[in-house]
Amino acid sequence: VNQTRTIGVIAGAGPFAGLDLLKKIFEQTIASSDQEHLDVLGLFRSSKLPDRTAYLLNPGLENPGYAIAAQALELEAAGATVVGIPCNTAHSPRIFDVALAELQERGSGITFINMIAETIASIQQQHPRLRHIGILSTTGTYRVKLYPNYLREAHLEAIVPDEDIQQTLIHNAIYDAIYGIKATGRATQKARQDLLKGFEHLVDKGAEAVILGCTEIPLAIPESTVGSIPAIDPTLILARALIRTANPTKLKPLP
Amino acid sequence: VNQTRTIGVIAGAGPFAGLDLLKKIFEQTIASSDQEHLDVLGLFRSSKLPDRTAYLLNPGLENPGYAIAAQALELEAAGATVVGIPCNTAHSPRIFDVALAELQERGSGITFINMIAETIASIQQQHPRLRHIGILSTTGTYRVKLYPNYLREAHLEAIVPDEDIQQTLIHNAIYDAIYGIKATGRATQKARQDLLKGFEHLVDKGAEAVILGCTEIPLAIPESTVGSIPAIDPTLILARALIRTANPTKLKPLP
Repeated sequence: VNQTRTIGVIAGAGPFAGLDLLKKIFEQTIASSDQEHLDVLGLFRSSKLPDRTAYLLNPGLENPGYAIAAQALELEAAGATVVGIPCNTAHSPRIFDVALAELQERGSGITFINMIAETIASIQQQHPRLRHIGILSTTGTYRVKLYPNYLREAHLEAIVPDEDIQQTLIHNAIYDAIYGIKATGRATQKARQDLLKGFEHLVDKGAEAVILGCTEIPLAIPESTVGSIPAIDPTLILARALIRTANPTKLKPLP
Repeated sequence: VNQTRTIGVIAGAGPFAGLDLLKKIFEQTIASSDQEHLDVLGLFRSSKLPDRTAYLLNPGLENPGYAIAAQALELEAAGATVVGIPCNTAHSPRIFDVALAELQERGSGITFINMIAETIASIQQQHPRLRHIGILSTTGTYRVKLYPNYLREAHLEAIVPDEDIQQTLIHNAIYDAIYGIKATGRATQKARQDLLKGFEHLVDKGAEAVILGCTEIPLAIPESTVGSIPAIDPTLILARALIRTANPTKLKPLP
Protein backbone atom coordinates (compact mmCIF):
# COMPACT_ATOMS: atom_id res chain seq x y z
CA VAL A 1 0.00 0.00 0.00
CA ASN A 2 1.34 3.41 -0.95
CA GLN A 3 0.93 5.58 2.16
CA THR A 4 2.24 8.66 0.37
CA ARG A 5 0.05 11.50 -0.83
CA THR A 6 0.96 13.51 -3.92
CA ILE A 7 2.00 17.09 -3.17
CA GLY A 8 0.68 19.87 -5.41
CA VAL A 9 2.43 23.23 -5.64
CA ILE A 10 0.84 26.37 -7.11
CA ALA A 11 4.25 27.42 -8.33
CA GLY A 12 3.71 30.49 -10.49
CA ALA A 13 3.59 33.20 -7.79
CA GLY A 14 6.29 33.85 -8.85
CA PRO A 15 8.05 31.05 -10.72
CA PHE A 16 11.43 31.47 -9.00
CA ALA A 17 9.74 31.27 -5.59
CA GLY A 18 7.91 28.18 -6.86
CA LEU A 19 11.22 26.60 -7.87
CA ASP A 20 12.67 27.46 -4.45
CA LEU A 21 9.81 25.63 -2.71
CA LEU A 22 10.16 22.58 -4.96
CA LYS A 23 13.91 22.50 -4.30
CA LYS A 24 13.35 22.71 -0.55
CA ILE A 25 10.79 19.87 -0.70
CA PHE A 26 13.39 17.57 -2.33
CA GLU A 27 16.21 18.80 -0.06
CA GLN A 28 14.14 18.14 3.08
CA THR A 29 13.11 14.62 1.98
CA ILE A 30 14.94 11.51 3.19
CA ALA A 31 15.99 9.90 -0.12
CA SER A 32 19.20 8.36 -1.44
CA SER A 33 17.93 7.61 -4.96
CA ASP A 34 15.50 9.23 -7.40
CA GLN A 35 12.88 6.59 -6.67
CA GLU A 36 12.75 7.40 -2.94
CA HIS A 37 11.50 10.95 -3.54
CA LEU A 38 7.89 12.02 -3.00
CA ASP A 39 5.49 12.58 -5.88
CA VAL A 40 5.14 16.31 -6.54
CA LEU A 41 3.24 18.32 -9.17
CA GLY A 42 4.43 21.86 -9.84
CA LEU A 43 1.90 24.02 -11.69
CA PHE A 44 3.46 27.19 -13.08
CA ARG A 45 0.58 29.17 -14.51
CA SER A 46 1.61 32.73 -13.69
CA SER A 47 -0.19 34.09 -16.74
CA LYS A 48 -3.53 33.17 -15.11
CA LEU A 49 -2.59 34.27 -11.57
CA PRO A 50 -3.16 38.01 -11.02
CA ASP A 51 -0.61 39.86 -8.90
CA ARG A 52 -1.58 39.59 -5.23
CA THR A 53 -0.10 42.87 -4.01
CA ALA A 54 -1.69 44.79 -6.89
CA TYR A 55 -5.10 43.44 -5.83
CA LEU A 56 -4.66 44.29 -2.14
CA LEU A 57 -3.65 47.85 -3.04
CA ASN A 58 -6.48 48.15 -5.59
CA PRO A 59 -9.48 45.95 -4.71
CA GLY A 60 -11.23 46.96 -7.96
CA LEU A 61 -8.97 44.39 -9.67
CA GLU A 62 -9.87 40.71 -9.98
CA ASN A 63 -9.42 38.79 -6.72
CA PRO A 64 -6.56 36.28 -7.22
CA GLY A 65 -8.33 33.90 -4.82
CA TYR A 66 -10.43 32.57 -7.72
CA ALA A 67 -7.36 31.74 -9.80
CA ILE A 68 -5.70 30.11 -6.78
CA ALA A 69 -8.77 27.91 -6.27
CA ALA A 70 -8.89 27.06 -9.98
CA GLN A 71 -5.22 26.05 -9.95
CA ALA A 72 -5.66 24.00 -6.77
CA LEU A 73 -8.53 22.18 -8.51
CA GLU A 74 -6.29 21.56 -11.53
CA LEU A 75 -3.70 20.02 -9.23
CA GLU A 76 -6.38 17.93 -7.53
CA ALA A 77 -7.65 16.69 -10.90
CA ALA A 78 -4.06 15.67 -11.69
CA GLY A 79 -3.80 13.65 -8.47
CA ALA A 80 -2.58 16.03 -5.75
CA THR A 81 -4.20 15.74 -2.32
CA VAL A 82 -2.10 18.19 -0.30
CA VAL A 83 -1.44 21.63 -1.77
CA GLY A 84 0.51 24.77 -0.94
CA ILE A 85 1.22 28.14 -2.53
CA PRO A 86 4.62 29.74 -1.86
CA CYS A 87 3.34 33.33 -1.81
CA ASN A 88 2.87 35.14 1.50
CA THR A 89 0.65 37.87 0.04
CA ALA A 90 -1.73 35.20 -1.31
CA HIS A 91 -2.38 34.23 2.31
CA SER A 92 -4.06 37.56 3.07
CA PRO A 93 -7.56 36.53 4.27
CA ARG A 94 -9.07 38.76 1.55
CA ILE A 95 -7.49 36.38 -0.99
CA PHE A 96 -6.92 33.09 0.84
CA ASP A 97 -10.41 32.87 2.39
CA VAL A 98 -11.98 33.43 -1.03
CA ALA A 99 -9.86 30.58 -2.42
CA LEU A 100 -10.82 28.24 0.45
CA ALA A 101 -14.53 29.09 0.13
CA GLU A 102 -14.38 28.46 -3.59
CA LEU A 103 -12.71 25.08 -3.03
CA GLN A 104 -15.33 24.10 -0.48
CA GLU A 105 -18.11 25.12 -2.84
CA ARG A 106 -16.61 22.93 -5.59
CA GLY A 107 -16.43 19.96 -3.23
CA SER A 108 -12.65 19.81 -3.21
CA GLY A 109 -11.06 17.26 -0.87
CA ILE A 110 -7.55 18.66 -0.82
CA THR A 111 -5.65 19.71 2.29
CA PHE A 112 -4.52 23.30 1.66
CA ILE A 113 -1.55 24.11 3.91
CA ASN A 114 -1.59 27.65 5.36
CA MET A 115 2.04 28.84 5.15
CA ILE A 116 1.53 31.73 7.57
CA ALA A 117 -0.06 29.58 10.28
CA GLU A 118 2.78 27.05 9.83
CA THR A 119 5.36 29.84 10.15
CA ILE A 120 3.87 31.11 13.42
CA ALA A 121 3.72 27.54 14.80
CA SER A 122 7.33 26.99 13.79
CA ILE A 123 8.46 30.17 15.59
CA GLN A 124 6.61 29.07 18.74
CA GLN A 125 8.29 25.66 18.60
CA GLN A 126 11.81 26.63 17.52
CA HIS A 127 12.14 30.00 19.27
CA PRO A 128 9.77 29.81 22.27
CA ARG A 129 11.52 32.63 24.19
CA LEU A 130 11.29 35.27 21.47
CA ARG A 131 8.55 37.92 21.71
CA HIS A 132 9.40 40.60 19.09
CA ILE A 133 9.24 39.36 15.52
CA GLY A 134 10.27 41.53 12.57
CA ILE A 135 8.62 41.21 9.14
CA LEU A 136 10.06 41.85 5.69
CA SER A 137 7.31 41.65 3.05
CA THR A 138 5.68 43.18 -0.01
CA THR A 139 3.71 46.37 0.53
CA GLY A 140 0.50 44.37 0.00
CA THR A 141 1.25 42.08 2.93
CA TYR A 142 2.41 45.13 4.95
CA ARG A 143 -0.78 47.16 4.35
CA VAL A 144 -3.19 44.38 5.29
CA LYS A 145 -1.12 43.57 8.42
CA LEU A 146 -1.09 39.89 7.50
CA TYR A 147 1.70 38.79 9.86
CA PRO A 148 0.87 41.29 12.67
CA ASN A 149 -2.66 39.86 12.89
CA TYR A 150 -1.41 36.28 13.06
CA LEU A 151 1.34 37.19 15.54
CA ARG A 152 -1.10 39.00 17.84
CA GLU A 153 -3.23 35.87 18.13
CA ALA A 154 -0.07 34.02 19.18
CA HIS A 155 0.69 36.76 21.74
CA LEU A 156 3.76 37.87 19.81
CA GLU A 157 4.62 41.45 18.89
CA ALA A 158 5.15 42.40 15.25
CA ILE A 159 7.97 44.79 14.35
CA VAL A 160 7.38 46.33 10.90
CA PRO A 161 9.52 48.71 8.83
CA ASP A 162 8.89 52.43 8.69
CA GLU A 163 6.72 53.39 5.68
CA ASP A 164 9.52 54.87 3.51
CA ILE A 165 11.88 51.93 4.10
CA GLN A 166 9.05 49.51 3.33
CA GLN A 167 8.48 51.00 -0.10
CA THR A 168 11.90 52.18 -1.28
CA LEU A 169 14.10 49.43 0.10
CA ILE A 170 11.96 46.35 0.57
CA HIS A 171 9.07 46.35 -1.90
CA ASN A 172 11.29 47.62 -4.70
CA ALA A 173 13.86 44.87 -4.08
CA ILE A 174 11.09 42.46 -5.09
CA TYR A 175 9.28 44.44 -7.81
CA ASP A 176 11.68 46.98 -9.38
CA ALA A 177 11.81 46.49 -13.16
CA ILE A 178 15.62 46.81 -13.29
CA TYR A 179 17.00 45.18 -10.15
CA GLY A 180 13.93 43.53 -8.56
CA ILE A 181 13.93 39.77 -7.98
CA LYS A 182 10.70 39.16 -9.93
CA ALA A 183 11.95 41.01 -13.02
CA THR A 184 15.49 39.59 -13.05
CA GLY A 185 14.71 36.09 -11.82
CA ARG A 186 17.59 36.26 -9.36
CA ALA A 187 18.78 38.11 -6.29
CA THR A 188 20.72 41.07 -7.66
CA GLN A 189 23.41 42.65 -5.48
CA LYS A 190 21.21 45.72 -4.93
CA ALA A 191 18.14 43.68 -4.00
CA ARG A 192 20.17 41.73 -1.44
CA GLN A 193 21.81 44.83 0.03
CA ASP A 194 18.51 46.68 0.35
CA LEU A 195 16.80 43.70 1.98
CA LEU A 196 19.70 43.34 4.43
CA LYS A 197 19.35 47.07 5.27
CA GLY A 198 15.64 46.41 5.91
CA PHE A 199 16.61 43.45 8.12
CA GLU A 200 19.03 45.63 10.16
CA HIS A 201 16.36 48.35 10.43
CA LEU A 202 13.98 45.81 12.02
CA VAL A 203 16.70 44.62 14.40
CA ASP A 204 17.35 48.27 15.37
CA LYS A 205 13.63 48.55 16.15
CA GLY A 206 13.85 45.57 18.53
CA ALA A 207 13.21 42.48 16.37
CA GLU A 208 14.66 39.29 17.93
CA ALA A 209 13.96 37.29 14.75
CA VAL A 210 12.89 38.38 11.26
CA ILE A 211 10.36 36.62 9.03
CA LEU A 212 11.39 36.67 5.35
CA GLY A 213 7.70 37.30 4.58
CA CYS A 214 7.77 37.27 0.79
CA THR A 215 8.91 34.11 -0.97
CA GLU A 216 11.29 36.07 -3.20
CA ILE A 217 13.25 37.27 -0.12
CA PRO A 218 14.90 33.91 0.80
CA LEU A 219 16.34 33.93 -2.75
CA ALA A 220 18.31 37.04 -1.68
CA ILE A 221 18.86 36.10 1.99
CA PRO A 222 19.47 32.33 2.04
CA GLU A 223 21.18 32.45 5.45
CA SER A 224 19.35 31.02 8.48
CA THR A 225 20.76 33.82 10.67
CA VAL A 226 21.93 37.38 9.91
CA GLY A 227 24.40 38.39 12.59
CA SER A 228 22.97 36.38 15.47
CA ILE A 229 19.33 37.06 14.53
CA PRO A 230 17.28 34.15 13.12
CA ALA A 231 15.99 34.70 9.56
CA ILE A 232 12.71 32.74 9.41
CA ASP A 233 12.04 31.25 5.95
CA PRO A 234 8.32 30.49 5.35
CA THR A 235 9.16 28.66 2.10
CA LEU A 236 11.30 26.16 4.02
CA ILE A 237 8.59 25.82 6.67
CA LEU A 238 5.95 25.21 3.97
CA ALA A 239 8.18 22.60 2.30
CA ARG A 240 8.49 20.72 5.59
CA ALA A 241 4.75 20.98 6.30
CA LEU A 242 3.93 19.55 2.86
CA ILE A 243 6.30 16.59 3.37
CA ARG A 244 4.98 15.99 6.92
CA THR A 245 1.41 15.94 5.59
CA ALA A 246 2.23 13.77 2.57
CA ASN A 247 4.38 11.22 4.41
CA PRO A 248 5.91 12.08 7.82
CA THR A 249 8.42 9.22 7.64
CA LYS A 250 10.16 10.99 4.72
CA LEU A 251 10.82 14.27 6.60
CA LYS A 252 14.47 14.96 7.48
CA PRO A 253 15.02 15.87 11.14
CA LEU A 254 15.75 19.53 11.87
CA PRO A 255 19.49 20.26 12.14
CA VAL B 1 -6.13 34.44 -28.69
CA ASN B 2 -3.52 32.72 -26.56
CA GLN B 3 -0.80 31.56 -28.98
CA THR B 4 1.17 29.89 -26.21
CA ARG B 5 1.26 26.15 -25.65
CA THR B 6 1.66 24.71 -22.15
CA ILE B 7 5.03 23.01 -21.57
CA GLY B 8 5.09 19.69 -19.71
CA VAL B 9 8.23 18.43 -18.00
CA ILE B 10 8.75 14.83 -16.86
CA ALA B 11 10.81 16.14 -13.98
CA GLY B 12 11.54 13.15 -11.76
CA ALA B 13 14.57 11.70 -13.57
CA GLY B 14 16.04 12.82 -11.24
CA PRO B 15 14.28 15.63 -9.38
CA PHE B 16 17.29 17.95 -9.17
CA ALA B 17 17.81 17.66 -12.92
CA GLY B 18 14.08 18.36 -13.33
CA LEU B 19 14.42 21.51 -11.23
CA ASP B 20 17.44 22.56 -13.29
CA LEU B 21 15.42 22.29 -16.52
CA LEU B 22 12.49 24.25 -15.05
CA LYS B 23 14.89 26.96 -13.84
CA LYS B 24 16.49 27.19 -17.27
CA ILE B 25 13.05 27.46 -18.94
CA PHE B 26 12.20 30.51 -16.79
CA GLU B 27 15.70 32.00 -17.14
CA GLN B 28 15.57 31.71 -20.95
CA THR B 29 12.10 33.30 -21.21
CA ILE B 30 11.62 36.98 -22.01
CA ALA B 31 9.56 38.17 -19.01
CA SER B 32 9.70 41.14 -16.67
CA SER B 33 6.81 40.10 -14.41
CA ASP B 34 5.38 36.82 -13.14
CA GLN B 35 2.46 37.07 -15.55
CA GLU B 36 4.69 37.18 -18.65
CA HIS B 37 6.10 33.69 -17.99
CA LEU B 38 5.04 30.62 -19.94
CA ASP B 39 2.69 28.02 -18.49
CA VAL B 40 4.68 24.99 -17.35
CA LEU B 41 3.72 21.76 -15.60
CA GLY B 42 6.44 19.90 -13.74
CA LEU B 43 5.59 16.29 -12.91
CA PHE B 44 7.96 14.80 -10.33
CA ARG B 45 6.98 11.15 -10.07
CA SER B 46 10.35 9.48 -9.55
CA SER B 47 8.79 6.68 -7.52
CA LYS B 48 7.08 5.42 -10.68
CA LEU B 49 10.02 6.00 -13.06
CA PRO B 50 12.47 3.08 -13.05
CA ASP B 51 16.18 3.92 -13.26
CA ARG B 52 17.17 4.20 -16.91
CA THR B 53 20.80 3.11 -16.60
CA ALA B 54 19.85 0.08 -14.48
CA TYR B 55 17.50 -1.03 -17.30
CA LEU B 56 20.09 -0.59 -20.07
CA LEU B 57 22.61 -2.63 -18.09
CA ASN B 58 20.01 -5.28 -17.19
CA PRO B 59 17.25 -5.54 -19.84
CA GLY B 60 15.38 -8.07 -17.66
CA LEU B 61 14.13 -5.11 -15.66
CA GLU B 62 10.98 -3.16 -16.56
CA ASN B 63 11.49 -0.83 -19.54
CA PRO B 64 11.19 2.79 -18.25
CA GLY B 65 9.71 3.77 -21.63
CA TYR B 66 6.26 2.71 -20.43
CA ALA B 67 6.45 4.96 -17.34
CA ILE B 68 7.73 7.84 -19.48
CA ALA B 69 4.74 7.45 -21.82
CA ALA B 70 2.34 7.21 -18.87
CA GLN B 71 3.75 10.41 -17.36
CA ALA B 72 3.63 12.21 -20.72
CA LEU B 73 -0.05 11.22 -20.96
CA GLU B 74 -0.63 12.55 -17.43
CA LEU B 75 0.89 15.86 -18.49
CA GLU B 76 -1.22 15.88 -21.65
CA ALA B 77 -4.39 15.22 -19.62
CA ALA B 78 -3.40 18.21 -17.44
CA GLY B 79 -3.08 20.48 -20.49
CA ALA B 80 0.50 20.17 -21.75
CA THR B 81 1.01 19.97 -25.51
CA VAL B 82 4.82 20.06 -25.74
CA VAL B 83 6.80 17.74 -23.47
CA GLY B 84 10.43 17.00 -22.61
CA ILE B 85 12.34 14.76 -20.23
CA PRO B 86 15.66 16.05 -18.86
CA CYS B 87 17.38 12.66 -18.78
CA ASN B 88 19.90 11.72 -21.47
CA THR B 89 19.79 7.99 -20.71
CA ALA B 90 16.01 8.00 -21.23
CA HIS B 91 16.71 8.98 -24.84
CA SER B 92 18.35 5.66 -25.62
CA PRO B 93 16.24 4.27 -28.51
CA ARG B 94 15.61 1.12 -26.44
CA ILE B 95 13.69 3.35 -24.01
CA PHE B 96 12.66 6.44 -25.98
CA ASP B 97 11.28 4.57 -29.01
CA VAL B 98 9.14 2.42 -26.70
CA ALA B 99 7.75 5.59 -25.08
CA LEU B 100 7.00 7.18 -28.47
CA ALA B 101 5.32 4.01 -29.81
CA GLU B 102 3.21 3.81 -26.66
CA LEU B 103 2.15 7.46 -27.04
CA GLN B 104 1.22 6.91 -30.67
CA GLU B 105 -0.82 3.82 -29.77
CA ARG B 106 -2.73 5.83 -27.15
CA GLY B 107 -3.52 8.56 -29.68
CA SER B 108 -1.46 11.22 -27.95
CA GLY B 109 -1.16 14.57 -29.71
CA ILE B 110 1.81 15.96 -27.79
CA THR B 111 5.06 17.11 -29.34
CA PHE B 112 7.82 15.19 -27.52
CA ILE B 113 11.11 17.06 -27.88
CA ASN B 114 14.16 14.82 -28.41
CA MET B 115 16.91 16.37 -26.28
CA ILE B 116 19.73 14.47 -27.99
CA ALA B 117 18.68 15.49 -31.50
CA GLU B 118 18.36 19.10 -30.29
CA THR B 119 21.85 18.92 -28.77
CA ILE B 120 23.41 17.68 -32.02
CA ALA B 121 21.57 20.38 -34.00
CA SER B 122 22.78 23.01 -31.54
CA ILE B 123 26.42 21.88 -31.89
CA GLN B 124 26.11 22.05 -35.68
CA GLN B 125 24.70 25.58 -35.48
CA GLN B 126 26.83 27.04 -32.67
CA HIS B 127 30.12 25.22 -33.33
CA PRO B 128 30.07 24.38 -37.06
CA ARG B 129 33.86 23.94 -37.28
CA LEU B 130 34.23 21.36 -34.51
CA ARG B 131 34.58 17.69 -35.48
CA HIS B 132 35.64 15.84 -32.30
CA ILE B 133 33.00 15.89 -29.57
CA GLY B 134 33.64 14.42 -26.11
CA ILE B 135 30.87 12.84 -24.03
CA LEU B 136 30.48 12.65 -20.27
CA SER B 137 27.54 10.41 -19.35
CA THR B 138 26.19 7.60 -17.21
CA THR B 139 27.48 4.12 -17.95
CA GLY B 140 24.06 3.27 -19.42
CA THR B 141 24.35 5.99 -22.04
CA TYR B 142 28.01 5.02 -22.59
CA ARG B 143 27.30 1.32 -23.18
CA VAL B 144 24.51 1.85 -25.70
CA LYS B 145 26.62 4.46 -27.55
CA LEU B 146 23.71 6.92 -27.52
CA TYR B 147 25.67 10.04 -28.44
CA PRO B 148 28.22 8.29 -30.72
CA ASN B 149 25.37 6.96 -32.87
CA TYR B 150 23.73 10.39 -33.16
CA LEU B 151 27.09 12.10 -33.79
CA ARG B 152 28.01 9.63 -36.55
CA GLU B 153 24.82 10.48 -38.43
CA ALA B 154 25.87 14.14 -38.21
CA HIS B 155 29.37 13.23 -39.49
CA LEU B 156 30.94 14.12 -36.16
CA GLU B 157 33.40 11.98 -34.23
CA ALA B 158 32.62 10.92 -30.67
CA ILE B 159 35.39 10.92 -28.06
CA VAL B 160 34.46 8.74 -25.09
CA PRO B 161 36.28 8.07 -21.81
CA ASP B 162 38.37 4.96 -21.22
CA GLU B 163 36.36 2.23 -19.50
CA ASP B 164 37.90 2.61 -16.01
CA ILE B 165 37.54 6.40 -15.99
CA GLN B 166 33.93 6.05 -17.18
CA GLN B 167 33.00 3.91 -14.20
CA THR B 168 35.16 5.13 -11.32
CA LEU B 169 35.21 8.86 -12.02
CA ILE B 170 32.14 9.70 -14.08
CA HIS B 171 29.34 7.25 -13.33
CA ASN B 172 30.12 7.27 -9.61
CA ALA B 173 30.02 11.09 -9.48
CA ILE B 174 26.34 10.71 -10.41
CA TYR B 175 25.35 7.53 -8.57
CA ASP B 176 27.69 7.02 -5.56
CA ALA B 177 25.64 6.67 -2.36
CA ILE B 178 27.95 8.98 -0.37
CA TYR B 179 29.11 11.72 -2.74
CA GLY B 180 27.02 11.15 -5.89
CA ILE B 181 24.76 13.95 -7.15
CA LYS B 182 21.60 11.80 -7.15
CA ALA B 183 22.10 10.71 -3.52
CA THR B 184 23.12 14.09 -2.12
CA GLY B 185 20.90 16.32 -4.25
CA ARG B 186 23.81 18.63 -4.96
CA ALA B 187 27.20 18.76 -6.63
CA THR B 188 29.63 17.67 -3.94
CA GLN B 189 33.25 18.80 -4.23
CA LYS B 190 34.34 15.25 -5.09
CA ALA B 191 31.68 14.83 -7.78
CA ARG B 192 32.74 18.10 -9.40
CA GLN B 193 36.45 17.29 -9.23
CA ASP B 194 35.97 13.82 -10.69
CA LEU B 195 33.78 15.12 -13.52
CA LEU B 196 36.34 17.83 -14.30
CA LYS B 197 39.04 15.12 -14.42
CA GLY B 198 36.81 13.23 -16.86
CA PHE B 199 36.42 16.43 -18.91
CA GLU B 200 40.21 16.92 -19.06
CA HIS B 201 40.66 13.26 -20.00
CA LEU B 202 38.37 13.79 -23.00
CA VAL B 203 40.24 16.95 -24.01
CA ASP B 204 43.54 14.98 -23.76
CA LYS B 205 41.98 12.44 -26.15
CA GLY B 206 41.22 15.19 -28.69
CA ALA B 207 37.76 16.54 -27.77
CA GLU B 208 37.17 20.08 -29.07
CA ALA B 209 33.92 20.37 -27.09
CA VAL B 210 32.39 18.16 -24.40
CA ILE B 211 28.71 17.25 -24.05
CA LEU B 212 27.59 17.15 -20.40
CA GLY B 213 25.54 14.08 -21.37
CA CYS B 214 23.77 13.37 -18.10
CA THR B 215 21.44 16.02 -16.69
CA GLU B 216 23.05 15.78 -13.25
CA ILE B 217 26.43 16.87 -14.71
CA PRO B 218 25.55 20.55 -15.41
CA LEU B 219 24.68 20.80 -11.68
CA ALA B 220 28.41 20.14 -11.03
CA ILE B 221 29.82 21.92 -14.10
CA PRO B 222 27.65 25.02 -14.63
CA GLU B 223 30.31 26.78 -16.71
CA SER B 224 29.75 27.18 -20.45
CA THR B 225 33.48 26.59 -21.09
CA VAL B 226 36.17 24.70 -19.16
CA GLY B 227 39.53 26.20 -20.06
CA SER B 228 38.73 27.23 -23.62
CA ILE B 229 36.69 24.12 -24.41
CA PRO B 230 32.89 24.51 -24.77
CA ALA B 231 30.84 22.54 -22.22
CA ILE B 232 27.61 21.66 -24.05
CA ASP B 233 24.58 21.57 -21.72
CA PRO B 234 21.69 19.48 -23.13
CA THR B 235 19.38 20.68 -20.32
CA LEU B 236 19.81 24.28 -21.45
CA ILE B 237 19.31 23.24 -25.09
CA LEU B 238 16.13 21.35 -24.15
CA ALA B 239 14.83 24.37 -22.19
CA ARG B 240 15.31 26.58 -25.24
CA ALA B 241 13.71 24.02 -27.59
CA LEU B 242 10.64 23.78 -25.32
CA ILE B 243 10.23 27.58 -25.24
CA ARG B 244 10.77 27.83 -29.01
CA THR B 245 8.07 25.21 -29.58
CA ALA B 246 5.65 26.70 -27.05
CA ASN B 247 6.04 30.33 -28.12
CA PRO B 248 9.10 31.43 -30.13
CA THR B 249 8.49 35.13 -29.38
CA LYS B 250 9.29 34.44 -25.70
CA LEU B 251 12.77 32.94 -26.31
CA LYS B 252 15.71 35.09 -25.20
CA PRO B 253 18.37 35.55 -27.88
CA LEU B 254 21.61 33.60 -27.42
CA PRO B 255 24.36 35.66 -25.74
